[in-house]
Amino acid sequence: MLKGVFRVEIPVIKRVLERNEMVAEEVRRILDDSSTVMLNFIGGPGAGKTTLLEATIRMLPDYKVAVIEGDITTTTDSERIKKLNVPVVQIETEGSCHLESLWVKRALEKIDLRDVDFVFVENVGNLVCPTEFDLGEHAKIGVLSVTEGDDKPRKYPLLFRLAKAVLLTKVDMLPYFNFNEDRFLSDIRKIKDIPVFKVNSLTGDGIANWVEWLRSFR
Amino acid sequence: MLKGVFRVEIPVIKRVLERNEMVAEEVRRILDDSSTVMLNFIGGPGAGKTTLLEATIRMLPDYKVAVIEGDITTTTDSERIKKLNVPVVQIETEGSCHLESLWVKRALEKIDLRDVDFVFVENVGNLVCPTEFDLGEHAKIGVLSVTEGDDKPRKYPLLFRLAKAVLLTKVDMLPYFNFNEDRFLSDIRKIKDIPVFKVNSLTGDGIANWVEWLRSFR
Repeated sequence: MLKGVFRVEIPVIKRVLERNEMVAEEVRRILDDSSTVMLNFIGGPGAGKTTLLEATIRMLPDYKVAVIEGDITTTTDSERIKKLNVPVVQIETEGSCHLESLWVKRALEKIDLRDVDFVFVENVGNLVCPTEFDLGEHAKIGVLSVTEGDDKPRKYPLLFRLAKAVLLTKVDMLPYFNFNEDRFLSDIRKIKDIPVFKVNSLTGDGIANWVEWLRSFR
Repeated sequence: MLKGVFRVEIPVIKRVLERNEMVAEEVRRILDDSSTVMLNFIGGPGAGKTTLLEATIRMLPDYKVAVIEGDITTTTDSERIKKLNVPVVQIETEGSCHLESLWVKRALEKIDLRDVDFVFVENVGNLVCPTEFDLGEHAKIGVLSVTEGDDKPRKYPLLFRLAKAVLLTKVDMLPYFNFNEDRFLSDIRKIKDIPVFKVNSLTGDGIANWVEWLRSFR
């Protein structure tokens, strides 16, 4: 078996991760000073993160929400969120496949946190690197879609180990896909006992349960 | 607008990319010496890369194919490919969200290239980092699924600029998803004029056209 032990840049990456962790602690202090809860949404491209955020924000009219959007080059997702009349800060990562705590700290400086209950961070569409970079969030939330297949807990165990909740999106597609829901759930349970919410963000199915969890988390 | 200019490790990443490029050139020479064509398949998690490779290999009984599988921790995809009786080398990336040319070079050392016409590399499920790392392949192939949405050419233009062909997978889902095919295709055309093959890897629909292109590419 060939392992990634040939990775030449590992010591450097380690230093980057350590520095990232220090700034993440600062971010957590800043958030706690204003009693703001920050969630870091992690999922692959097209898993339905933006649509989930839209559905979630609509169900939280009694809370003040701000959004940080991580995107490579475009403002597509930010434009969608802006229509909900919540503050949005876009971080263009210009080729990076994850967000880092320093960029989030700078983004938070553009938001009046005294006036914000929740910050939702939509990370870059990717299941690997975003998981490794602590942004100072209070919880990582895994976003997986039915159409991606049921093998994600086995392939990306770190995400499920670190996440405090998992959203299974596009559940209306369950009848059309060879997605073994029992296997998906039991593979997650083997890693960690975390709540899994089945949602259809377009119709709103299941969103109420997820939002209830969110309220209790705050 | 907050840009990713705060990226502390950019000079390091540049050096990593330069070193990667040098090894990629070596890999290309090694492949050319044995007249082996290598393709680098890039797509998000669950875009259907492994299923596409299975369908493609079945349609190429007259060619000798080997597969390099990039995966974080599991051998799930390699096991599937092995069932087709083609040589598979697995690269466990242990947390890296892309493959690098050095690992591919080591993987190629495990394959008797004199006996191989095509090497298919299944990169880590990600649309960002794998695009930036030249593996010494003759072509990058973009793999996008209908269920991920039609916004990918706008969000990940670099992949479409560098790819020599694009596969749109899970096309049987077109009637059930709000996927604007015209927009997807015209957004690709704005970036580069490359062939786009609509396929359903499970039923085999559209696979013949793609495989025809593959034969002519060789």
